[in-house]
Amino acid sequence: MEGIPLPPKHTGELLKDVVAQARALPNEGAVADYIPALAKVDPNYLGLAVVELDGQVHTAGDAHVPFSIQSISKVFGLTLAMERMGDSLWERVRMEPSGQAFNSIMQLEWEHGIPRNPFINAGAIVVADTLVCRYSASRTAFTQFVQSLAQNESIQVNEQVWDSEREHGARNAALAYLMKSFGNIKASVEHVLDHYFYQCSLDMSCVDLARALGFLANRGVQPGTDEVVCDPRSTHRINAMMSTSGMYDQSGEFAFSVGLPAKGGVGGGLVAVVPDYGVICAWSPRLNPYGNSHRGMFMVRTLAEELGLSVYS
Amino acid sequence: MEGIPLPPKHTGELLKDVVAQARALPNEGAVADYIPALAKVDPNYLGLAVVELDGQVHTAGDAHVPFSIQSISKVFGLTLAMERMGDSLWERVRMEPSGQAFNSIMQLEWEHGIPRNPFINAGAIVVADTLVCRYSASRTAFTQFVQSLAQNESIQVNEQVWDSEREHGARNAALAYLMKSFGNIKASVEHVLDHYFYQCSLDMSCVDLARALGFLANRGVQPGTDEVVCDPRSTHRINAMMSTSGMYDQSGEFAFSVGLPAKGGVGGGLVAVVPDYGVICAWSPRLNPYGNSHRGMFMVRTLAEELGLSVYS
Amino acid sequence: MEGIPLPPKHTGELLKDVVAQARALPNEGAVADYIPALAKVDPNYLGLAVVELDGQVHTAGDAHVPFSIQSISKVFGLTLAMERMGDSLWERVRMEPSGQAFNSIMQLEWEHGIPRNPFINAGAIVVADTLVCRYSASRTAFTQFVQSLAQNESIQVNEQVWDSEREHGARNAALAYLMKSFGNIKASVEHVLDHYFYQCSLDMSCVDLARALGFLANRGVQPGTDEVVCDPRSTHRINAMMSTSGMYDQSGEFAFSVGLPAKGGVGGGLVAVVPDYGVICAWSPRLNPYGNSHRGMFMVRTLAEELGLSVYS
Amino acid sequence: MEGIPLPPKHTGELLKDVVAQARALPNEGAVADYIPALAKVDPNYLGLAVVELDGQVHTAGDAHVPFSIQSISKVFGLTLAMERMGDSLWERVRMEPSGQAFNSIMQLEWEHGIPRNPFINAGAIVVADTLVCRYSASRTAFTQFVQSLAQNESIQVNEQVWDSEREHGARNAALAYLMKSFGNIKASVEHVLDHYFYQCSLDMSCVDLARALGFLANRGVQPGTDEVVCDPRSTHRINAMMSTSGMYDQSGEFAFSVGLPAKGGVGGGLVAVVPDYGVICAWSPRLNPYGNSHRGMFMVRTLAEELGLSVYS
Repeated sequence: MEGIPLPPKHTGELLKDVVAQARALPNEGAVADYIPALAKVDPNYLGLAVVELDGQVHTAGDAHVPFSIQSISKVFGLTLAMERMGDSLWERVRMEPSGQAFNSIMQLEWEHGIPRNPFINAGAIVVADTLVCRYSASRTAFTQFVQSLAQNESIQVNEQVWDSEREHGARNAALAYLMKSFGNIKASVEHVLDHYFYQCSLDMSCVDLARALGFLANRGVQPGTDEVVCDPRSTHRINAMMSTSGMYDQSGEFAFSVGLPAKGGVGGGLVAVVPDYGVICAWSPRLNPYGNSHRGMFMVRTLAEELGLSVYS
Repeated sequence: MEGIPLPPKHTGELLKDVVAQARALPNEGAVADYIPALAKVDPNYLGLAVVELDGQVHTAGDAHVPFSIQSISKVFGLTLAMERMGDSLWERVRMEPSGQAFNSIMQLEWEHGIPRNPFINAGAIVVADTLVCRYSASRTAFTQFVQSLAQNESIQVNEQVWDSEREHGARNAALAYLMKSFGNIKASVEHVLDHYFYQCSLDMSCVDLARALGFLANRGVQPGTDEVVCDPRSTHRINAMMSTSGMYDQSGEFAFSVGLPAKGGVGGGLVAVVPDYGVICAWSPRLNPYGNSHRGMFMVRTLAEELGLSVYS
Repeated sequence: MEGIPLPPKHTGELLKDVVAQARALPNEGAVADYIPALAKVDPNYLGLAVVELDGQVHTAGDAHVPFSIQSISKVFGLTLAMERMGDSLWERVRMEPSGQAFNSIMQLEWEHGIPRNPFINAGAIVVADTLVCRYSASRTAFTQFVQSLAQNESIQVNEQVWDSEREHGARNAALAYLMKSFGNIKASVEHVLDHYFYQCSLDMSCVDLARALGFLANRGVQPGTDEVVCDPRSTHRINAMMSTSGMYDQSGEFAFSVGLPAKGGVGGGLVAVVPDYGVICAWSPRLNPYGNSHRGMFMVRTLAEELGLSVYS
Repeated sequence: MEGIPLPPKHTGELLKDVVAQARALPNEGAVADYIPALAKVDPNYLGLAVVELDGQVHTAGDAHVPFSIQSISKVFGLTLAMERMGDSLWERVRMEPSGQAFNSIMQLEWEHGIPRNPFINAGAIVVADTLVCRYSASRTAFTQFVQSLAQNESIQVNEQVWDSEREHGARNAALAYLMKSFGNIKASVEHVLDHYFYQCSLDMSCVDLARALGFLANRGVQPGTDEVVCDPRSTHRINAMMSTSGMYDQSGEFAFSVGLPAKGGVGGGLVAVVPDYGVICAWSPRLNPYGNSHRGMFMVRTLAEELGLSVYS
């Protein structure tokens, strides 16, 4: 970067332009259909938001419509767990890219039940286990944490999605039981999965998400409230893991073509952290074969290029 | 980063201090012994160099002693190949972290002979194949490229290491023949390996390496000579791949704890790129279980922390 | 075989001799300890029985002491399922050796939830699923089937072992949920595992087991009762699968050194079918690294050599 | 078996009938095309031979036409190596089914360069290495051994196939170099592969093959010549390994549906040993997805059923 990025006054114009370009793209990919509740979402939603550290909010398209955050919830869960567990967390989950599809069970067997990182499902389930063990009411604690970060008390779980997740959660149950067999799940698998599916089923808008993750761009201090969410070392570590592992088995390509810490979810959301500047959140439900939002990738890449945001220079 | 890092005047002092701390560490790890020529290196060498974009050179310890660059050569090979091949290179090698040991052959079979990235051995062998096919004298071209970048015409191959690599190269031959069986090696395997082992066997010092890779911190323009080595998009991409995959199966941990694009070699060298600032090179022959320099990791991490160099905040 | 094996009159003497030799072996291996209830078994038990097609019973050592049949139950389950399902069973489980440890989950992922054969855990769980779906009271049906084959109504489940299996069944749950995610488990996983753990927890003696499996040596007709248990094609197929896959990842070695259709269990039991002659059952709780009875292997091998029983010459 | 199989006088008629049935099957599968020389074979060849221990020869179709024996050569190589190496052979190759495609390189990496059995390519290459190390002229020794067994001095290598094998042998070279990297190839890889490709390139007819392997049905004594080829323990072991691993990753299905020790080759040949009776050889060049002869499987299965030849009862 040529020093701190100074986005042009017309950032809002740029967002509208990027959304229009995305809308004109051919319809590639399909809405996640592994659970019926997600498959019903209108594939044409398109939202984009940028929340800067100084509080400026830029939006375009459906940036205020809540959607299922799915795997983006892993960032919130990890933040909570890092604060509660300290470095002992890293005995139970590593920080290496997986080089595998996001829900691969093979690697977990090779590596004796220790997941590669907190952003693959197995890793997030271990993180959920630590929350279940540390909080008497982990779901409530999780929701309050996210509401507080997003400064929006109306954020809540989508019960229909939550039910659907539980009903179609066999593969995640397989991952959890495999880790249990290696001693790396402490609470009951049912309880842990209940929490995990719950946190995936929160509904949030692009603006909610971009605002909620501001602390990652601001060395742990939440912009707006000045609350200390975590120490700077933790935001560094979370950003680093998002950079190497946040986009499933497309993380390398995302670094190569965009160059920002990011996390995608199968609900079509995609958040990207720009250190010392702010947070971007894009949303479009159609997914590419890696499980990332097809148009979300396009929007974040275009924005990053236009504004010169990559961390890799 | 709080804006562009402004290293204190006493960077030289800091390097000496870091080398002293590294020297006091317990003797962990062992010199690479898979080829006899490397196993003979004195394990007590310890060098550290920083070359800034404005030409300042800071050194400590054995920063001027040439050593076997080994896998660091992959960065030079990749740069040459990206210039020669353009985007067609990415049909033959991907840009994803491998999640595997650096010379794993399993993943290559799964993924039909397309290596995960140019920094694992298989990927670098594909890159070598492109060089062998594009240059009538690829070894000479390679050496001249490196000499020119380092502004040091005395850089040359260590014949003893080269011979030893060829003699003990069965595993790399297995990788190359497997890719050949999938059609992803075009020249003869013998020829390609000959080039690959050659480039690994160049001897360079910490100062040579830090100077040679200056263009990666400077958007493709070589500091000192102002030569355009490649375009800024290429340096972005190389830095991104070094960030996600440069340190073998410890790349995630390196991002987590250091946060710089980097590449290690089993000769004990470790280079790290600091965009818009310069390049660090550390050298210590004892390796950790991942094949990275034990004390080299320590020196680069300490320096990055002291100077606030991480790209992730 | 030199024609039909004609065991010498003194088969009973031979058994006693073999047991004595086995008792004199050094104490190798350890009792299965993955569930506490099994770990408590006295490791010094040693039993051997041969039941011939004409009804002659030869025994030595603890041949009348009931023990946990564990994986030997897979043979009974498979027989029942083959009768109920016909060839449709082979769409849900294959008949190939696995080349993997008996509870490997990797292969199941590769092969999309279709287990390699009915004698690895995953395959036996699919078989259990078919029984649960076909019988209103599958556990009762299973017990009655086994009691009837063994002509012993006192055979029953060991409740302590059954509870222990359920409590420590995380790995089998992982296998079952993974297959469920591929659509290859139809009933609820809880129900299927409940049946599976139940059948593994039956207690039977060497004599019970050797008598119960007589139909496999007699083209489907149970010696003694003349009941048609299944058709000759089915016994051929079961014997074939026991020959290629019955002894976990030591099946090849067992064929190589013994040459009989066989099945081992982690309770230390080992049954071997001798077509047109009878059934051997050995029992000794200490297991080798493959999960087979150390002394059980010795006893069956010695007996097969002495009596010239191998099917391979 | 109902005692020793007593084939009806009209075995010759039966063979002609089976060949006619095979000819009427739809054209499934394709001739091996991984080497050009094999791809040129007329796919309509169809041969069947039975050579009984008493010297009777029954044939139908193209039973006297020589074809490329390919992997059937592994049986001859193994027999020679077992005689030369004794039990030390089993430190370098195991006797377990692989549960993998015949040329999988993954398993070899997992298992540190020790192949699962002598009938997958890696195992046969280790066997070839032992022959190259033990004989000053291993190719000549091999040919003489086969000629002597088949009582046919006109058997020789097909030079065109041999050349083609060498030219397209990249995958086997990958296997060999990987084993070399683990120390499990002693001679030069080039030399070993040269021998291996040579033995695969011998041309023999169905009658040649069925006659040559007679010793396997006769406890090591070659019918006709009464030469002791190996001891009975060796024929037992070879038959056992053919039963569990001889038909690539279809060995379990072959045992299940046929029940004879057998070995297939990608030239379309298939030999099956009937202990105490004789040897069957079928040939048809079209292969199924496992690399076994589609019509060859049909012919051997039909013959085994008609004559009641299975070893599993």
